[in-house]
Amino acid sequence: MDSSWEDLTLAFSRTSMFPFFDIAHYLVSVMALKHRPGAVEGAWKNPFSSWFTAMLHCFGGGILSCILLAEPPLRFFANHTNVLLASSIWYIIFFCPWDLISQGYSFLPVQLLAAGMKEVTRTWKIIGGITHANSYYKNGWLVMIAIGWAQGAGGIIITNFEQLLKGDWKPEGNEWLKMSYPSKVTLLGSLIFTFQHTKHLTISKHNLMFLYTIFLVTTKITMMITETSSVTLAPFEDILSRMLFGWQHQFSLCEKKCGAKSSSNGTGSSVSKPITDGSDDVKRKHSKKTE
Amino acid sequence: MDSSWEDLTLAFSRTSMFPFFDIAHYLVSVMALKHRPGAVEGAWKNPFSSWFTAMLHCFGGGILSCILLAEPPLRFFANHTNVLLASSIWYIIFFCPWDLISQGYSFLPVQLLAAGMKEVTRTWKIIGGITHANSYYKNGWLVMIAIGWAQGAGGIIITNFEQLLKGDWKPEGNEWLKMSYPSKVTLLGSLIFTFQHTKHLTISKHNLMFLYTIFLVTTKITMMITETSSVTLAPFEDILSRMLFGWQHQFSLCEKKCGAKSSSNGTGSSVSKPITDGSDDVKRKHSKKTE
Amino acid sequence: MDSSWEDLTLAFSRTSMFPFFDIAHYLVSVMALKHRPGAVEGAWKNPFSSWFTAMLHCFGGGILSCILLAEPPLRFFANHTNVLLASSIWYIIFFCPWDLISQGYSFLPVQLLAAGMKEVTRTWKIIGGITHANSYYKNGWLVMIAIGWAQGAGGIIITNFEQLLKGDWKPEGNEWLKMSYPSKVTLLGSLIFTFQHTKHLTISKHNLMFLYTIFLVTTKITMMITETSSVTLAPFEDILSRMLFGWQHQFSLCEKKCGAKSSSNGTGSSVSKPITDGSDDVKRKHSKKTE
Repeated sequence: MDSSWEDLTLAFSRTSMFPFFDIAHYLVSVMALKHRPGAVEGAWKNPFSSWFTAMLHCFGGGILSCILLAEPPLRFFANHTNVLLASSIWYIIFFCPWDLISQGYSFLPVQLLAAGMKEVTRTWKIIGGITHANSYYKNGWLVMIAIGWAQGAGGIIITNFEQLLKGDWKPEGNEWLKMSYPSKVTLLGSLIFTFQHTKHLTISKHNLMFLYTIFLVTTKITMMITETSSVTLAPFEDILSRMLFGWQHQFSLCEKKCGAKSSSNGTGSSVSKPITDGSDDVKRKHSKKTE
Repeated sequence: MDSSWEDLTLAFSRTSMFPFFDIAHYLVSVMALKHRPGAVEGAWKNPFSSWFTAMLHCFGGGILSCILLAEPPLRFFANHTNVLLASSIWYIIFFCPWDLISQGYSFLPVQLLAAGMKEVTRTWKIIGGITHANSYYKNGWLVMIAIGWAQGAGGIIITNFEQLLKGDWKPEGNEWLKMSYPSKVTLLGSLIFTFQHTKHLTISKHNLMFLYTIFLVTTKITMMITETSSVTLAPFEDILSRMLFGWQHQFSLCEKKCGAKSSSNGTGSSVSKPITDGSDDVKRKHSKKTE
Repeated sequence: MDSSWEDLTLAFSRTSMFPFFDIAHYLVSVMALKHRPGAVEGAWKNPFSSWFTAMLHCFGGGILSCILLAEPPLRFFANHTNVLLASSIWYIIFFCPWDLISQGYSFLPVQLLAAGMKEVTRTWKIIGGITHANSYYKNGWLVMIAIGWAQGAGGIIITNFEQLLKGDWKPEGNEWLKMSYPSKVTLLGSLIFTFQHTKHLTISKHNLMFLYTIFLVTTKITMMITETSSVTLAPFEDILSRMLFGWQHQFSLCEKKCGAKSSSNGTGSSVSKPITDGSDDVKRKHSKKTE
């Protein structure tokens, strides 16, 4: 049984992303673009701009990692097949008569299949990013994590930036880097695969790829079926944030009880705020648990 | 006669841009900057910022293509002669007593000569960009088109971006990539020269350079004399947009007549909008023709 | 005595920045970040975003010079020691219970020591930038000045850009490139060290480093003690701006006296404004002197 598991995961890790998984990725990306308000009208008025945005949605991660490694951001343009594939999908989705593709995509099983396949490409991208970064910086595990993460989830940053330039998006304080669920999961994956690459995890690469992809696909599909977002990682985040930033809360609480004697000097206002913040946070957590 | 034509175009294609055509380019670019509201007052208050903006106006295309090919954006700074030339022109235009240069430039023949010479530099830049991109990606015709276009017309994007950073420009939806007439003409030239470079067009390079430059200069000068903008390409665009996006309009119209039966499901709202848009578009075209 | 001076400056020029001067630099940078409104609350809510901003504050100059030379902006991530050092300082400053570090930093002598040591790192950064740029462009003194300046003061530009993306900062016209005092002093240093590097200044490098650092540290500390900003360079700027742009004022004034006869043509409005501006400027200078 052990050897058949090995065979399965090895075969899985050798699956080619081109063309079917890539098509699913382009389909999901361009459909996400189409559901933005004003995107359809914009495409009729200014097809070039719409096409350019679609390319950024499809190849955003690659573009970001190219920028971070000082490689030509236009490199994805040299891969004619993929550009033409993505362009055709953009053309069909936006300009198909009777909106056939959108109607087909509105069936949940089709969406689930496409979303699941898109998540598979994420694993491949993370590993591609890490391998690529490793060829630049031999032991630069921080760079490897960053590039793996940029390759897998950087499209969000690129498209946000593009919306900022087009004036469709007004940034709010603390919104820019508030990580979405895909970002967090990609960062986790990037961490795991980097540690596997630097031999700190003794699991073999194809096994890890299989397990991580299964994790990605199942969480994505359960999230789509149950229509929740970002539940799975909440407990781990809670533990992590309590480990890193939680003990100060206890100090703060203690300090509050003992009275705020130290807030008489110049930096007092910046001291007192975290205290209330902290206690509110703890209260919120308590009320969550009692619910 | 054929050989004298060859001699003429060959001699033309060997013309050096430095110094006279470059001077014309810098002159037109810096004069465009000066006519922005607040530019003159800004130059007195903050000369460094004004000089920097002028450099972006003069070398914007080169900077954009450097960014896209991951080359140092500061490379233009290494060409001291051109930087000093552009700086002198900026200095003379902004700080010349009695505004002599502006007054000289306000005569139409001077403007026509300078604008015509600037258009000549555009051909040289497009070809430079294509040749440069070809040295990176042997068969990357998409990259070649993009770099040729960036080199020839990218200054507009760079200066828009700079205005965004300075807060002088608030982007509007669909405005960012709405291509101006120079952008369109440069894209056309980039397409033609790329196809010539990849041997898909059997015309010789110097002949094509001569013809394209003549086309650029004559359209620019007629546009300046008749004070119209962007008329020449309208019929071709019309045909192209009808070829690519027009047939859906007919489907949409037909569908409208047959009744909107399919708009009862969830994606109905995104379906119905293009229909009305499309029919409006067709109506507009009809009314244009009857005028 | 001459040889002991040589010994002193040579020993000084061989001082290693790591770890104490680097720590001072990170401390001052992160404390500046902490004093921004909302930074402390933001760090509790979104630690990742706060950490990323802190890294931009600490390594901004290096990132900007990497972008300008088309090197990986992530290169600073490959230097694990410094990243971990800066991260620890960020963690201690933002999450230390009872805000001990902030209270320690609120004593003026500590601030003076840290600020002085930070200024020492500036000299090292400028020289590093110039040497690095020289390895790209042999005689590119303009590039050398720009990279030296970016390395030494580019953090300000990077953090402004980051604030723009986060929506915390609305740019105002002419604000973007209005150089702060550190920018001006760094530009001056970049000019001096470039001329020393190209053998236009016959002073030895270690002497120049010593003198320039002394100048930086003393001006910074006097500015902090007297709570003034940017006084030291004002007379030189005044002379320079009078040399470059002053003589037009005299023409303008003369022209004003003779009557504004030439302002009857189309460009009149753009001519007349600098005149009033200019005379106001001169008046302001006169009133300054009489005060």
